[in-house]
Amino acid sequence: MDFKIPDRNDIIAAALRIEPYIHHTPVLSSKLINEILDAEVFFKCENFQRAGAFKMRGATNAILTLSKDELKDGVATHSSGNHAAALALAARNIGVKAYIVMPSNSSNVKVDAVRHYGGIITFCEPNVIAREEMLAKVVAETMATEIHPYNNVRIIAGQATAAKELIEQTEKLDIIMAPVGGGGLLSGTALSTVYFSPGTIVIAGEPMNADDAWRSFQEGSIQPVSPLHTIADGLRTSLGTLTFPIIRDHVKEIITVDENSIIEAMRLIWMRMKIIVEPSSTVPLAAMMKQKSTFKGKKVGIILSGGNVDLDHLPWNKI
Amino acid sequence: MDFKIPDRNDIIAAALRIEPYIHHTPVLSSKLINEILDAEVFFKCENFQRAGAFKMRGATNAILTLSKDELKDGVATHSSGNHAAALALAARNIGVKAYIVMPSNSSNVKVDAVRHYGGIITFCEPNVIAREEMLAKVVAETMATEIHPYNNVRIIAGQATAAKELIEQTEKLDIIMAPVGGGGLLSGTALSTVYFSPGTIVIAGEPMNADDAWRSFQEGSIQPVSPLHTIADGLRTSLGTLTFPIIRDHVKEIITVDENSIIEAMRLIWMRMKIIVEPSSTVPLAAMMKQKSTFKGKKVGIILSGGNVDLDHLPWNKI
Repeated sequence: MDFKIPDRNDIIAAALRIEPYIHHTPVLSSKLINEILDAEVFFKCENFQRAGAFKMRGATNAILTLSKDELKDGVATHSSGNHAAALALAARNIGVKAYIVMPSNSSNVKVDAVRHYGGIITFCEPNVIAREEMLAKVVAETMATEIHPYNNVRIIAGQATAAKELIEQTEKLDIIMAPVGGGGLLSGTALSTVYFSPGTIVIAGEPMNADDAWRSFQEGSIQPVSPLHTIADGLRTSLGTLTFPIIRDHVKEIITVDENSIIEAMRLIWMRMKIIVEPSSTVPLAAMMKQKSTFKGKKVGIILSGGNVDLDHLPWNKI
Repeated sequence: MDFKIPDRNDIIAAALRIEPYIHHTPVLSSKLINEILDAEVFFKCENFQRAGAFKMRGATNAILTLSKDELKDGVATHSSGNHAAALALAARNIGVKAYIVMPSNSSNVKVDAVRHYGGIITFCEPNVIAREEMLAKVVAETMATEIHPYNNVRIIAGQATAAKELIEQTEKLDIIMAPVGGGGLLSGTALSTVYFSPGTIVIAGEPMNADDAWRSFQEGSIQPVSPLHTIADGLRTSLGTLTFPIIRDHVKEIITVDENSIIEAMRLIWMRMKIIVEPSSTVPLAAMMKQKSTFKGKKVGIILSGGNVDLDHLPWNKI
């Protein structure tokens, strides 16, 4: 395992490497949302990405940079969400097996997605220790190579390609925003911004109910994730040893938002833009709504991280 | 009022005329949907159109072709749906008043949209006679110019621009599909296909529960709309005296589909394409699913007519 922070060339190489396997997603905007915020917002639509989320970028880059020897027994991870489906699809694309440990309470939609892409699922108790133990067992039995969902430089370089594309698709942005969970997307976004759009500020949005990144940022050391529930199911993880220092050094601010504002922002995007985004995606827009003065008159790029929602259980039916 | 069927130049002129006021909507496709159907399907995304539906094209063209004298007292229509919002917005864009007669049971979402665009609403009893009587009263009082939602050549020429764009955005299509309600979109689509892509076949999709177009097509004369309920709320109207002959002469086939297949097609588009489309939009895809052999191996363009749905009442929550 290699711990060097991805440099400019690593991200350029990742973009070229993954190109045949990913969508070059569009950048959309909404006149009404611009009016509400008195800003120009450019949404990078990773909800249209293959497997429905930016995770496909990192998973593909990680797999394509492994040696034949590392790939021969397949890859493995534990994930209840988008990384699981992305790794399964990325592995299938090059004919490699993917072993996915999923908590027994994973939603049917996510389980079906992993199965659809040919992932080999092992269920475990729904807690971090059980997940890690089960993954260790699967890896020991299969000799598969573990690919961590975010604390992996190859994953970070892959996720960084979303912001790189956004920068290429827009005129000079004042601010780029991403949500933060484990920090793979945010650290990659920060690196691409430093390399390809110096002077542009990076601001993250985070659910108040999973504000470990905000607390880590304030404390200067990694803080554990809060036990509270957030609807933004992609953002429940805590920062990693690789993602934290990048975020600490290159992110200007983390804005935390409450659950209702995440749902409101989600509904606004669905209603006005006619696109399906998952709650994690809408956290940066909720942050803009909360702290309008920071963004007033600015050109702001937002990475809409994914679009995998359970259509039978939409959040506004629960308010 | 002018009853000449729009010719090639009328549609080219309409496209140029409305250009500043409408979105040039994208054409999307889905690998999975192509696999399911063993065909190449190109979706023209009028759900991303301003006011959320293709109706903006016809309404804008109709308004822009009226004389100053015809515009001075505003425009008027009765509609519970997308034409209402589109006419209100098209009128506002050029600073003209729009009087909209809406049935008292119109959904809040539709009423809010009309209000948001500055439309002046008069409510009436929810039946055709009450709507027409109230509209006559409003027109008598205001001297506004009535703009019919589909039985109007300017509307038809405007709606035709969606298929014209789709043809320009794709390689030669074998088949172009649209849903049919009053026939404004379908007749415009048929004309654009004849003029700009001769040899391409036009096939319509229609809900079985509102199969007046299918019956009219078989009988050779306009048949009344069925009293059955369909979830495809944009398709509950019957053909007009202007739209019927165009459809009779230039549409190859009308395929009727049941309610469940409309909902299934809608869910498939939402899940796989991550875009929000209303039930009326998904009728052509349901028709493809029903009659796969007709489309096998073909390049098929589908006009996704709109994206205005009530997020609090999604159809799959009712099955």
